[in-house]
Amino acid sequence: MKSKNFTRPLNNPPFINSSACIVGPKEGEGPMKETYDLIVDDEYWAEDTWEKSESKFVKETYRKIIKKANISNKDIDCIVCGDLLNQSIASSFGLRNEKVSLLGVYGACSTMAESMIVGSMMVSSGIANNIVCMTSSHFCSAEKQFRFPLELGNQRTPTSQRTVTGSGGVLLSDKGQGPRVSRLTVGKIVDMGISDANNMGAAMAPAAADTLASHFQIFSPDDYDYIYTGDLGIVGRDICNELIRGEGYNIDSKYKDCGELIYSSEQDAHAGGSGCGCSAVILAGHILNLLKNGDANRILFVGTGALLSPTSSLQGETIPSIAHAVCIER
Amino acid sequence: MKSKNFTRPLNNPPFINSSACIVGPKEGEGPMKETYDLIVDDEYWAEDTWEKSESKFVKETYRKIIKKANISNKDIDCIVCGDLLNQSIASSFGLRNEKVSLLGVYGACSTMAESMIVGSMMVSSGIANNIVCMTSSHFCSAEKQFRFPLELGNQRTPTSQRTVTGSGGVLLSDKGQGPRVSRLTVGKIVDMGISDANNMGAAMAPAAADTLASHFQIFSPDDYDYIYTGDLGIVGRDICNELIRGEGYNIDSKYKDCGELIYSSEQDAHAGGSGCGCSAVILAGHILNLLKNGDANRILFVGTGALLSPTSSLQGETIPSIAHAVCIER
Repeated sequence: MKSKNFTRPLNNPPFINSSACIVGPKEGEGPMKETYDLIVDDEYWAEDTWEKSESKFVKETYRKIIKKANISNKDIDCIVCGDLLNQSIASSFGLRNEKVSLLGVYGACSTMAESMIVGSMMVSSGIANNIVCMTSSHFCSAEKQFRFPLELGNQRTPTSQRTVTGSGGVLLSDKGQGPRVSRLTVGKIVDMGISDANNMGAAMAPAAADTLASHFQIFSPDDYDYIYTGDLGIVGRDICNELIRGEGYNIDSKYKDCGELIYSSEQDAHAGGSGCGCSAVILAGHILNLLKNGDANRILFVGTGALLSPTSSLQGETIPSIAHAVCIER
Repeated sequence: MKSKNFTRPLNNPPFINSSACIVGPKEGEGPMKETYDLIVDDEYWAEDTWEKSESKFVKETYRKIIKKANISNKDIDCIVCGDLLNQSIASSFGLRNEKVSLLGVYGACSTMAESMIVGSMMVSSGIANNIVCMTSSHFCSAEKQFRFPLELGNQRTPTSQRTVTGSGGVLLSDKGQGPRVSRLTVGKIVDMGISDANNMGAAMAPAAADTLASHFQIFSPDDYDYIYTGDLGIVGRDICNELIRGEGYNIDSKYKDCGELIYSSEQDAHAGGSGCGCSAVILAGHILNLLKNGDANRILFVGTGALLSPTSSLQGETIPSIAHAVCIER
């Protein structure tokens, strides 16, 4: 765990001038319901396929981000985005009519943090002024693609997580007000030999701990009021907590996981939420609210991704994972 | 076509200190055979699946890039990479043992240019010193995933292109010698309504022309000795040439396409090569050789990607496309 990842402070820390998140019906019944911009009561959102619905989540979230910032497409230098669907079609089809330059990224469920890393480096360096960073996921399109047809009604294992239906994103700008992205750590791939695709929290936890330990070699855990991992869920959060304790850091009192927070225990979501959208909607709503309301001064946001595919799992492979971190402060 | 994409000159243009490319047997029989670092005579490369073979192409290309630069993993700040396989498993599995920070990108067959854009912005800004940018594709894994089982022996249409088996990449550094990445244009999604997944050249040509026209609003076509698009192939290259002529630029005498160059007309590859690996291996070999040998002073390299998936095609969707450009000069 000791090898150092790419960790840097950012010059001219970019401002998060706007954020937006839209979720599906189940997420809208969860404990974070007050923090979302829009709750859609139909997984299809009046489209004829789940994939088109997910693209609509992306499109509408993007429109909300720029509307809330009171700017238009011509002010956006670039969009940085990606998603879980094969060939990232939620992003590509959702944004195809915007006529804005686009960099596609892929970090599985770490994509929100990854997009913010790329976007914040661009704004920080002065090469860009306004970058939108965003991602999405959709319970139905993800189940169909990664697991079983929903119509089978398969029972899920206790360690399984529920892919969040939702999209979230932020506008990063060189000028403005509000929270700023001030530090980053780009994760490396960590593969501890977990091969159970129904226990992704356990697969991703070592990657999260590796990124945290690497970040803490440069910046103290004491700097942070809260540390949020992306979607380790209940099982993975505890593993990560143990691993990072083994590295000599006790963060238990300030450590939360977006996947653990997004559903209540009554919602029958097993080990919690997952999917690119999970950490994206918690970031764009709850986490930024904490900073804006003065309930926290500095938060470390650690997106966590499992870099598997159905093909790799069928070929008996383990699950390589990765975690990317950004520090957000007021 | 007139709206402006994100186009910038780069401060402290990064040096391409090293490059490498490895190709499969068919590519090794083509007209560019002298420019490859290694020709593998077996599509499986002694692995038991095509996907594992593609990962090996990635791994071995990465090893060659850093070996040729006489540096080691600890000197690399970050790898920027991606590929066509679902969830980018060629990259993730190929690089999982390197213990180097990694940013996954997705631009379909524009990925080589996209990775260089992200990497060169990082080096140019001073936040990183050494970044490896790379990608891969594999004829067999791509056919299986995007079209039909190879065992069917389906006949291919005249406009179809052959996915290149190969991986290529470059090392971008703040210090060194050799060609430098000095300008970039991030493309936007262009969708002109083409829905024939066997005519991707036609689908991608408008995106390439859009990026070229946008680049030429800032930088003159006269600056360039050669302009290379990624993998429009014979059909798409002619369409792009016509479209850009319609924008008022005559680049015919200096305009080439990597997909057109990689196979000879005797090789029965129909409209030419495609896949992320196509432009990557032509860049890492032939194009950089032109600059190193003094046969060109400045080249515009334009990666072209079709952002479709089998699911989007089955749902009757058209093919959104994108093209990213980097200027390389000696």
